Amino acid sequence: MRSDEPTRLANIIASLFRDQSTETEQIVVDERSTVDLIAGADAQDDCAVFRLSGEHELVVGSDYVRGTKFRLYEMGHLSEYNLGYYLVAANLSDIAAMGAHPIGLLSVVRYPSDMSDESFESIMQGIKDACTRFRCPNIGGDIGSAERLILSASALGTCRRGTALFRSGAKLGDLVCITAPTGLAGAAMDYLRAKKPSPTVDNLHLDTMLDSWRYPSARVDEGIALAASRRVTSCQDTSDGLKATIECIASASGVGITVFEDSVPVPASVAAVARHLGLDPFVFVFGDSVDFELTFTAPPDAVDQLRKQMALHVIGEVTDSGEVLLRRSDGSHASLPGEAWRHAPEEVGR
Amino acid sequence: MRSDEPTRLANIIASLFRDQSTETEQIVVDERSTVDLIAGADAQDDCAVFRLSGEHELVVGSDYVRGTKFRLYEMGHLSEYNLGYYLVAANLSDIAAMGAHPIGLLSVVRYPSDMSDESFESIMQGIKDACTRFRCPNIGGDIGSAERLILSASALGTCRRGTALFRSGAKLGDLVCITAPTGLAGAAMDYLRAKKPSPTVDNLHLDTMLDSWRYPSARVDEGIALAASRRVTSCQDTSDGLKATIECIASASGVGITVFEDSVPVPASVAAVARHLGLDPFVFVFGDSVDFELTFTAPPDAVDQLRKQMALHVIGEVTDSGEVLLRRSDGSHASLPGEAWRHAPEEVGR
Repeated sequence: MRSDEPTRLANIIASLFRDQSTETEQIVVDERSTVDLIAGADAQDDCAVFRLSGEHELVVGSDYVRGTKFRLYEMGHLSEYNLGYYLVAANLSDIAAMGAHPIGLLSVVRYPSDMSDESFESIMQGIKDACTRFRCPNIGGDIGSAERLILSASALGTCRRGTALFRSGAKLGDLVCITAPTGLAGAAMDYLRAKKPSPTVDNLHLDTMLDSWRYPSARVDEGIALAASRRVTSCQDTSDGLKATIECIASASGVGITVFEDSVPVPASVAAVARHLGLDPFVFVFGDSVDFELTFTAPPDAVDQLRKQMALHVIGEVTDSGEVLLRRSDGSHASLPGEAWRHAPEEVGR
Repeated sequence: MRSDEPTRLANIIASLFRDQSTETEQIVVDERSTVDLIAGADAQDDCAVFRLSGEHELVVGSDYVRGTKFRLYEMGHLSEYNLGYYLVAANLSDIAAMGAHPIGLLSVVRYPSDMSDESFESIMQGIKDACTRFRCPNIGGDIGSAERLILSASALGTCRRGTALFRSGAKLGDLVCITAPTGLAGAAMDYLRAKKPSPTVDNLHLDTMLDSWRYPSARVDEGIALAASRRVTSCQDTSDGLKATIECIASASGVGITVFEDSVPVPASVAAVARHLGLDPFVFVFGDSVDFELTFTAPPDAVDQLRKQMALHVIGEVTDSGEVLLRRSDGSHASLPGEAWRHAPEEVGR
């Protein structure tokens, strides 16, 4: 069960469903067969995981996207096509984070009766094109009217039995990696909301940053490779921001994590925006930037193998300190910069 | 792919996804395994169906519910608890219609920031209680804020390989059955909207009718039994109204269906409301009443067997006429009464 409101998650949701979704729940389908729910609402992973009979595990999750309430949509930087595309990427990112191969996307598209056929078709084309890009069949859903555009979806994936990735397996000595630099989505947001244009940023960086909203990448191939390696000990996508992701993996795994300041990649666009706005670029890199990169942990020798299959950046290590820390260039330690969670999600445009 | 807007479904959605979701699509998960999508967006069944390796087929579908836009909610007849309950029943009804055993529900609950903890907890309790009633684990979803309450869900189910029920298998000579009388939901709606109270209806019938909105039954056990019989040739739930359901089964199966006027059950509450409002009760029984009964077809000897396992009503037969007809008591034929589809769903409160 995911929520952007941690208080209600802890106080109401978790207590309501604690008894209903225990660690492994066996569902008796008939007298000859059962299905095991090995990660349900309690687990707070990106998706739920079922173990079916046969060789596959089934991974399934749902994501609602704010769509027309995205600030960048309201400001005219995103089209209806982009919203459809985003819906798919956000949902498939959760499947990727579990290491599963996408097998289907169910989309809920409800729209106001005065929406033009062109706008409606544009949304559906965005959904279709993103499904094609990430090789995920669109398997249906629920399309119809509402007072305003509502976009939600569920994605399904499968992986080989025993290979699904969770947040809760990081071990002392593992390295902490990300699939690509983070911060572009947040930098785009803050730059455009500041309404303080820079010709350099506009000419060299704006499209790159906006593409993280227009055509976000779900790291499907990377997730599949991480699961197939059978050496990755934890994984989560960075859709809540890198700091939140690292804290969540540490907490779920009962370990500490130290991030090396000098190893954290800062995209040139993020650096340019930070410079222009007079901010520390780590505010974007670690903060509430909705990027869909994967953060994962694995032993050093496994990371060496994975390098041959995908781009990755080692940014830290798992420790027994019990704390999430930033190790500075001078060897001193500090807490991680950035906001860990969207306490008021309206404010950040999701 | 389901839609309450048939024109856009036909013109835009169907054409966009025609090439993407063919009759059976094989998804290569890795070099050693594949998953078959045997009913996708094109099939227009209640759910999509996957054939995984092993003994199970996976059934999955999504339903958005109007929730606070239900007329009966706006009129004060439904609580937040009822909306949560309804969300689950509507989604599990689709699973039931495919003959699958529910294995998980993913719920999307987005709510305005000024919603009280009590209201929020009430929604979640309704979701939980309905999941418990229908023995379906709640496996997570997406909970967070929005400008108004948004309720959507996806349900998953499994059935034994080769037993999933579709709309498209009705055969000449089959009987047409329903699991229980229909029309209660529509009669409740029209009675309360007419604002012309009757003491008889209020005292004897109103609670029964309102319960079809407050605590709707998903016919999960019946769906499982229908699939297990391996004799049922088609099945669909009546959530679009009985007329629409019969027309859809006939069309998908390429057959005609004749409904016997004298065999169609009319609930006492529906008869009372119709009498009070001066309407033909069949307007509710066949019309746009959102009941969650199952309509199915099977050969006569199979229906005799199924009677021993569940309540059912034989209401007609499959013909080779190519038409959907009502056979009156006097032997004459007419078209089915009722509205076949919600062309303006706002008007009917879904």
